[in-house]
Amino acid sequence: MDLSHLLAPRSIALVGVSESSRWSQAIVNNLKLQGFPGPVHMVNPRHETEFGQVSHPCVAAIPGEVDLAYVMVPTAIAEIAARDCVAKGVRAIVMLTSGFAEMGEAGAAAQHRLSSYLAQHDVALCGPNCLGYINANAGVAAYALTMVEASRPGPIGAVLQSGALLLPVLRAMQKREMGLGVLISSGNEAMLDATDYLAHMVEDPQITVLGALLEGIRRPAAFAAVADRALHLGKPLVVLKMGRSEVGQRVALAHTGAMAGSARFAEALLRQHGVVQVHTLEDMIETLGYLSAYGAPPGDRIGLIASSGGTCGLASDLGTELGLRYPAFAASTRARLQEVLPEFATIQNPLDVTGYVVIQPDLASNATRVVAQDPEVDVVVSVTAVPESPGPAPHLIDQRMAEQAEMVRGAGRYVVLASTQAGDLSPFGRELVRRHGVYVLGGVAGGLRAIRAALDHTRARHRLADVEAAAAATNDRILPPLPGGGGPLDEAAAKRLLGDFGVATPREGMAASRDAALALAREIGLPVVLKVVSPDLPHKTEAGAVALDLRSLDEVGAAYDRILASARRYRPDARIAGVLVAEHAADGIEMLAGVQVDPVFGPGVVVGLGGIFVEALGDSALRLLPLGPGEARAMVEELRAHTILKGVRGRPPADVDALAAALLALGEMAAALGPRLRAIDVNPLLVRAAGRGVLALDALVDLEPAVGAPAVAL
Amino acid sequence: MDLSHLLAPRSIALVGVSESSRWSQAIVNNLKLQGFPGPVHMVNPRHETEFGQVSHPCVAAIPGEVDLAYVMVPTAIAEIAARDCVAKGVRAIVMLTSGFAEMGEAGAAAQHRLSSYLAQHDVALCGPNCLGYINANAGVAAYALTMVEASRPGPIGAVLQSGALLLPVLRAMQKREMGLGVLISSGNEAMLDATDYLAHMVEDPQITVLGALLEGIRRPAAFAAVADRALHLGKPLVVLKMGRSEVGQRVALAHTGAMAGSARFAEALLRQHGVVQVHTLEDMIETLGYLSAYGAPPGDRIGLIASSGGTCGLASDLGTELGLRYPAFAASTRARLQEVLPEFATIQNPLDVTGYVVIQPDLASNATRVVAQDPEVDVVVSVTAVPESPGPAPHLIDQRMAEQAEMVRGAGRYVVLASTQAGDLSPFGRELVRRHGVYVLGGVAGGLRAIRAALDHTRARHRLADVEAAAAATNDRILPPLPGGGGPLDEAAAKRLLGDFGVATPREGMAASRDAALALAREIGLPVVLKVVSPDLPHKTEAGAVALDLRSLDEVGAAYDRILASARRYRPDARIAGVLVAEHAADGIEMLAGVQVDPVFGPGVVVGLGGIFVEALGDSALRLLPLGPGEARAMVEELRAHTILKGVRGRPPADVDALAAALLALGEMAAALGPRLRAIDVNPLLVRAAGRGVLALDALVDLEPAVGAPAVAL
Repeated sequence: MDLSHLLAPRSIALVGVSESSRWSQAIVNNLKLQGFPGPVHMVNPRHETEFGQVSHPCVAAIPGEVDLAYVMVPTAIAEIAARDCVAKGVRAIVMLTSGFAEMGEAGAAAQHRLSSYLAQHDVALCGPNCLGYINANAGVAAYALTMVEASRPGPIGAVLQSGALLLPVLRAMQKREMGLGVLISSGNEAMLDATDYLAHMVEDPQITVLGALLEGIRRPAAFAAVADRALHLGKPLVVLKMGRSEVGQRVALAHTGAMAGSARFAEALLRQHGVVQVHTLEDMIETLGYLSAYGAPPGDRIGLIASSGGTCGLASDLGTELGLRYPAFAASTRARLQEVLPEFATIQNPLDVTGYVVIQPDLASNATRVVAQDPEVDVVVSVTAVPESPGPAPHLIDQRMAEQAEMVRGAGRYVVLASTQAGDLSPFGRELVRRHGVYVLGGVAGGLRAIRAALDHTRARHRLADVEAAAAATNDRILPPLPGGGGPLDEAAAKRLLGDFGVATPREGMAASRDAALALAREIGLPVVLKVVSPDLPHKTEAGAVALDLRSLDEVGAAYDRILASARRYRPDARIAGVLVAEHAADGIEMLAGVQVDPVFGPGVVVGLGGIFVEALGDSALRLLPLGPGEARAMVEELRAHTILKGVRGRPPADVDALAAALLALGEMAAALGPRLRAIDVNPLLVRAAGRGVLALDALVDLEPAVGAPAVAL
Repeated sequence: MDLSHLLAPRSIALVGVSESSRWSQAIVNNLKLQGFPGPVHMVNPRHETEFGQVSHPCVAAIPGEVDLAYVMVPTAIAEIAARDCVAKGVRAIVMLTSGFAEMGEAGAAAQHRLSSYLAQHDVALCGPNCLGYINANAGVAAYALTMVEASRPGPIGAVLQSGALLLPVLRAMQKREMGLGVLISSGNEAMLDATDYLAHMVEDPQITVLGALLEGIRRPAAFAAVADRALHLGKPLVVLKMGRSEVGQRVALAHTGAMAGSARFAEALLRQHGVVQVHTLEDMIETLGYLSAYGAPPGDRIGLIASSGGTCGLASDLGTELGLRYPAFAASTRARLQEVLPEFATIQNPLDVTGYVVIQPDLASNATRVVAQDPEVDVVVSVTAVPESPGPAPHLIDQRMAEQAEMVRGAGRYVVLASTQAGDLSPFGRELVRRHGVYVLGGVAGGLRAIRAALDHTRARHRLADVEAAAAATNDRILPPLPGGGGPLDEAAAKRLLGDFGVATPREGMAASRDAALALAREIGLPVVLKVVSPDLPHKTEAGAVALDLRSLDEVGAAYDRILASARRYRPDARIAGVLVAEHAADGIEMLAGVQVDPVFGPGVVVGLGGIFVEALGDSALRLLPLGPGEARAMVEELRAHTILKGVRGRPPADVDALAAALLALGEMAAALGPRLRAIDVNPLLVRAAGRGVLALDALVDLEPAVGAPAVAL
């Protein structure tokens, strides 16, 4: 759907406008303030005039075309107003009127009728229960809370699933002199949702940075497509996703009724599609402002210059804790710094140019220019202060700012300015940075957090080929046969399926008798493992149905009897398919791998440290399908357990390649099983020394039955 | 030393003052601005007048008493100026002059001479290389960078080991209308250090909240004493400790030359003594402002009220991620909320009172009053907005603010106000909150972080008894005999020592022959473990000198030969004391426990998950001596591995009591060994099921030799 009539209308009708309403006062004020160039028509049948203009009895009575209707009538006549708009040929509606889906089932039904009707007539609907939007790039402020000043046109386009937060976000951006082009509150999203607005803005050449405050992601695939498009165009997409916690999910559900899906799946989706993730409103604002001014950072190696040892100390700790790096300066940089800095300065990174800056004010700029030539540094951060007032020497302030602006633009390198500390700019400060066209990051802490967040985009761009290859992958290999039955497969069947997809399993066989078990043990070679196989015993260890590390045939025989007896005691009616005899493999690291299925986001491949550590340490990585080889590798590398896999305490490095390959195989298996898949759980997946591969020591595969197949596969 | 002449002087001499100096201009301006009531004398022999006053040739020439001299002469004559001050009977000096310890060895020597001389004459010295301080409570601003406005008297007292950050901190506090009583930059700390200033301020009845920005903790014991005193008095101490990262330590060393000690030990010291820890300047400021207005929060159960679903969503996630809790409201609260809120509001915590607040502005206040009666809630957070300007209805703004002030003061419960988002107050907003005597936390994110940080104080107060008991503990039990030798003890000797202090070790014995090993194995009972014991083989596993889980005498015999051969191959000259035969205990969780010794902070007891997980997962806890039982328990509980210890996947809970007791025993052992102790490392320490205790399966104890004892104990 074309959103240009909605977001850049040539004419607007205010439907249900009233001089006595605070909403009406606000929107009339805002349109004037933002300098809307087209006609604004008043519609209210009860009065002859509103705000000094003719008040029309209905939209249809307005002479001339109307692109956008801003509707603020009572709930009861919202549908009538919509029909009136359609009759007039209005192309888009922003509906402030509330009392729809947020009010329960009857409201949801009314909302559905409304949006279906408007969709039939090709009318774009923003809301209902929505405060509207501001498009400074088009001179429109169709927003119903009073703005303090006009929004400055610029490259930021953002959508918020919380209308009340629009004004504080706008105000904060204004006080930091950010160019906020488009800011939309999406309300109940009856027709258009956040993804639609992002899809529209990503194609807008004036918008180079996108932002979204999301309570839920209604259409994961569509959202992923927008994120991919943004990444492809090199436009960073900054997302603050709410509902990361259980409390937050509950609150989001109450607020917009959006089905949230699992927070971990949402996070995986964002990560996989190169979205810049932030967790506070302040970080979202700072990151948008920073990206709009400087674009994404080329890398994570920071060179920082300040005129205070304390600032350098703070930046050192915070940067390191964020995972940024402060490389040692190159020898040539050190030599040149020695020339420009006082003798008592210590040449290191972060660099304190010392308090001598009070005497020689261009000290920091000179040092910054030198550091900007250092090949070891990706991002040069020059810590500065934007003066609050002109003081006794305004021309010096101006000169300093011009110098810094030139330093940023003329260095030919990625140089950013940051203030010592967060805080709004004063009116003088705003005018100063606007005039010189510079953006100063708000504080060392917030600035470093914004740089770190923005690296999500940089890194995703680097692996773009991998992401696009995975997305476009046409799987032309011949798929192995899939089991027809449903329910959890027994261990042997689950392992066969894994083996078919290329995940190695131990040498093993099924025994139906003690003698058969002994024969198998001889054939496989000691030590062996014995397990009772039954679809009714998913927790074998708890049932005493497992014996590990059996080193002699005597031990095998005794264990055979013991585990069968124990299993029968644990669950007398368990259907027992036999006893699995398998090689005892323990020469590796026990990981867990599998596939989980989320009702909103679909299947995701998961990997983590195995055994008792899974829940305790919460160290696992998740990716949605499709999974490319680069992402599979990245999953393993983001685990804390990666340190262990690389080899610690004299242990050889583990076969990380084979682990990544196994994750890809699980992804293929999940894709092949499609909607039949409920879960795959390989625990433990033994990862042996490099070159020796992995072994699925135990496996659970849970399926919906294939159409026409029996409910349980045995 | 009495610091009252320094921090609350009756008269001040500006030594080396000059109208043309920016430092001088600033300090003269600041003293006037802050309304210093006493005489300010000018001292400069080269001019007759300075700043319109008589300029004296030297301090001694000033008529009348001089409490404080602010010295800003060139480095070369700093000592002469000091003598001049002493001759006059000046009681305190702030020395701006730089060129001392920060300039290398010669400077350090000059600084030492200066401070020794002044100490002899009982003159307090702040600095040198120090911008000074502001004491708004005494009307003094002896600070040499230009202040924009006077500091507002109040209950906050803070010291910064970074003079350049004083002004931004002050300004940020002013813009948020905080009452900053005393703010000191400590400079080179030649005589008085940050701990001295804190020790002075903690006794000041006007100061109720303390803050410190620290690059290093020079005197851990003295600092701990101040922290304990602050805790005892119920005055929260907020610390931003720099040098947490390696880069940060390097920077701090260059900046002040302070020997940092290990960051982990510093962190442990702060934690143990109930210090409120923050990591950014913004969080430090916010936490100080919050604590000065509201005092420490009574608990971690938050009830949050906002008029935006988005704010509630953000608060839910952030609060949960910080470890705060949002309990469900009591039934009575829910019932009363249903009465005051519109029908379509969802009654839950966090509570969105809905956008209906635009129509009924007291909605949030009414709901807050209800939530404030809920017994399940410790801290009521009411999210509000401080208006930027009076707007069309200033009396309504006033009325709303009065209502909120009454709500905070009159509720009889702990109710705090927070704004939706961080940002400075406007001049109108400042005047408004000052007039109504309220403090509004700066943003939901920053506010929740401040509450979380302040809980450090609350929790420390709760365990005060434990801390004080540990500090006062007179250990009257008879100590076991200590070994006289030095170097690493062999495993058997180390385990004996552990056993003497009450840490259980396995049934085991030393064998000098294969037959003796077999006999021991029979006596102890199979399965057993064999290890070659040698002071030259600290890494036994690497040397192949260990055999585990030997289940038959055949296996024992074979292992005996194998491990001895392997050890001799690994290190032919190893001195071998014998082969240790021990019960094979594997029925528990392998932890690591020990004592590490830091050159600055002394010994600290450490515990963590054992085996290959130690380095990889970085999951360990550390406490300095003395260690009380509550702290020992808290160490275990702060581990991520605590989840495992509590029992996961059908495993029984582990003997956490015995683990805590073992940590206490290690603390006692470290105290008994005193400065002789280099390190104790028990790895693994097997923690068995509850009631079954712990077992030190392997141990290393490294000692300095006792005076007169041989270098290596064998």
